[in-house]
Amino acid sequence: MERNVIVGQSGGPTAAINSSLAGVYRTAKDRGAKKVYGMLHGVQGLLEEKYIDLSDHIKTELDVELLKRTPAAFLGSCRYKLPEIHEDRDVYDRILAILDKLDIEAFIYIGGNDSMDTIKKLSDYAIITGHPTRFIGCPKTIDNDLALTDHTPGYGSAAKYIGTSMKEIIRDSFCLEYSKGLVSIVEVMGRNAGWLTGATALAKGEDCEGPDLIYLPEIPFDLQKFGEKVKKILETKTSVVVAVSEGIHLEDGRYVCELGSSIDFVDAFGHKQLSGTAAYLASYIAGEVGCKTRAIEFSTLQRSASHSASRVDILEAYQVGGAAVKAADEGDSGKMVVLQRLSDDPYQCGTEVKDVHKIANDEKLVPREWVNKDGSYVTNEFVSYVRPLIQGDVSPVMVDGIPRHLYTPRELSQR
Amino acid sequence: MERNVIVGQSGGPTAAINSSLAGVYRTAKDRGAKKVYGMLHGVQGLLEEKYIDLSDHIKTELDVELLKRTPAAFLGSCRYKLPEIHEDRDVYDRILAILDKLDIEAFIYIGGNDSMDTIKKLSDYAIITGHPTRFIGCPKTIDNDLALTDHTPGYGSAAKYIGTSMKEIIRDSFCLEYSKGLVSIVEVMGRNAGWLTGATALAKGEDCEGPDLIYLPEIPFDLQKFGEKVKKILETKTSVVVAVSEGIHLEDGRYVCELGSSIDFVDAFGHKQLSGTAAYLASYIAGEVGCKTRAIEFSTLQRSASHSASRVDILEAYQVGGAAVKAADEGDSGKMVVLQRLSDDPYQCGTEVKDVHKIANDEKLVPREWVNKDGSYVTNEFVSYVRPLIQGDVSPVMVDGIPRHLYTPRELSQR
Repeated sequence: MERNVIVGQSGGPTAAINSSLAGVYRTAKDRGAKKVYGMLHGVQGLLEEKYIDLSDHIKTELDVELLKRTPAAFLGSCRYKLPEIHEDRDVYDRILAILDKLDIEAFIYIGGNDSMDTIKKLSDYAIITGHPTRFIGCPKTIDNDLALTDHTPGYGSAAKYIGTSMKEIIRDSFCLEYSKGLVSIVEVMGRNAGWLTGATALAKGEDCEGPDLIYLPEIPFDLQKFGEKVKKILETKTSVVVAVSEGIHLEDGRYVCELGSSIDFVDAFGHKQLSGTAAYLASYIAGEVGCKTRAIEFSTLQRSASHSASRVDILEAYQVGGAAVKAADEGDSGKMVVLQRLSDDPYQCGTEVKDVHKIANDEKLVPREWVNKDGSYVTNEFVSYVRPLIQGDVSPVMVDGIPRHLYTPRELSQR
Repeated sequence: MERNVIVGQSGGPTAAINSSLAGVYRTAKDRGAKKVYGMLHGVQGLLEEKYIDLSDHIKTELDVELLKRTPAAFLGSCRYKLPEIHEDRDVYDRILAILDKLDIEAFIYIGGNDSMDTIKKLSDYAIITGHPTRFIGCPKTIDNDLALTDHTPGYGSAAKYIGTSMKEIIRDSFCLEYSKGLVSIVEVMGRNAGWLTGATALAKGEDCEGPDLIYLPEIPFDLQKFGEKVKKILETKTSVVVAVSEGIHLEDGRYVCELGSSIDFVDAFGHKQLSGTAAYLASYIAGEVGCKTRAIEFSTLQRSASHSASRVDILEAYQVGGAAVKAADEGDSGKMVVLQRLSDDPYQCGTEVKDVHKIANDEKLVPREWVNKDGSYVTNEFVSYVRPLIQGDVSPVMVDGIPRHLYTPRELSQR
């Protein structure tokens, strides 16, 4: 590389997104980039010329290691969607002018579906206007719902946390109840895709029976059948543990969480929070079956739990960041780096680049054949798919009993 | 020892309670006990003669190590309260008859306040009737609210998990919000004692500002002042993170969680779940301040997160189990093992035994002087107290990407 690189992060936080940032930074530096800038809060901040020189923050090799272990977007995130080019060219011209001013050769954006839409539009506009900056996307989402890539960085660590915590909840649950029966409903993130909820099956092993039932949002949920299944299981076991996706809904389209009377929230991105699915089902079962119930939400913890990250995930996130810079350096633009699995066992995986037009705004769901016939559990194929992605640990750098992170730019949190 | 030992677990699960069980088992075996029985579901199960021979389950040294790393009560728990002796001697006679049948020399009960009440009553009754079995209590509770002991096994691991997860939430929070402000309210366990909520201050360090506000249940909560404080902080920061105990209440005694309209639950032990404190406050702030808010509950995860256990805690829990057996072997009865801190830095701590009559049914709260003047944060003294308890890690035995536990007796979960 001969000029500068700028990198941004967008969408929901993960435990691995900063490992991709570390990969971008290191590879850009290794390939001769003069400066590596970080946009603060993605394109939204860039439009206000908010950015930092990453060398001011990543000063040592230890800092690179800390960054890999730091959860959530180090540079801050955004949910900014660019207008269609024909609607408003002005915003594109402003972005390109800022890139020119900073002498940017490559623009790397780490994110999910919406972020790939940004890469698509910017690279299209650069082609139209003959602008030389190259735009490359770097996949990131715990939801694992990006098309054309075998999986997404961030998913493996979330799945490992979910499998581990689910196992701990199962232990907790069945020591509690002596005779009457206790039904624990655990709510997992995932509005449309059940990849995270399915990962609760990882709790199952020689030493644990795993959750009793798993419901993904891909398949319509039947309240009555659910109640009957729980009753049936309670005939032989005193503790029943159920994993449900926040996005499960009835045949008629109504979300389960909308059936109850829990307080409604709008999340930080303005989406209606699908909170209360577990709470509603716990209350439903208490009424139908007459046993004790409890509702547990993994909540934010599942996406930012760096202390329980998967080594495979953190390394792949780092590789993907490096591969994005390499692709830009080799002349690619309008592409996203994808992970291509070569084999399950032994697990082998490499990177490629694919046309971002085929990825943006698409959503990869769990295949129907990876869920059992009546939609109440994932199959062995699902577990074989996810198992390699949770292997290995990334020892946190412990300081005084708590994992150390790389200190985030002060500009992020202060007005 | 010349005869047999029986051990039970009672009250809420923790990440360390099985390490105490391992300590009881090993020390009893080392001191010559012929058999070490485990009551299933504590005294409640014992009354129905439900018990196991622990040697059938702990067969190797590796099993001992796995047991130390297995969360929640391996033997199952209960919340059974013995009647007063003068009310019903029959239940006492039944228990002693079972102990005679099993040739029990020492009865060890691992638990919190209610469990120490059991030890007190049984040892009293044994004295009255001249029964030779010795009854010793072994402290356990994440709530850290037992009298006469510097701290309780289980608390350190919960505090470590809470400090770690709080730090991850803070990272998550301030990468999300760009300008308008986001207030995250995190709810921590603790009905009356704020030890767990105060542990969120552990997130604070060179690399993290820690939570902005911390509210313990010991001090009456003022909604209006809280709103004003949040507004004030939002003037300089875009992300505000608040830790609240589930048990905070107004000056007039009403719990904050009762002010809202969230669904009410009764937990597995019949206590009304104080759920919804964070949800109510998030909704209150959204209304008062007009910014985005979110509510996060650590929920069950905070008490059973063996994957993030404190080494100090797990080792002390093991020691305390051993010390309980030693005390019984040396002739003590009606006592509880306590931890006595010799110094903070370097941290040194030993065990003693104290009269259980002075412990049972008492509740140790956070001292007023360990909370700042306006009741919105813990002091450095609080942090100096808890910091040594979260030191060191207990590497989980990872099998296929997930921590391995010792398989729980099948009798526990099946009818």
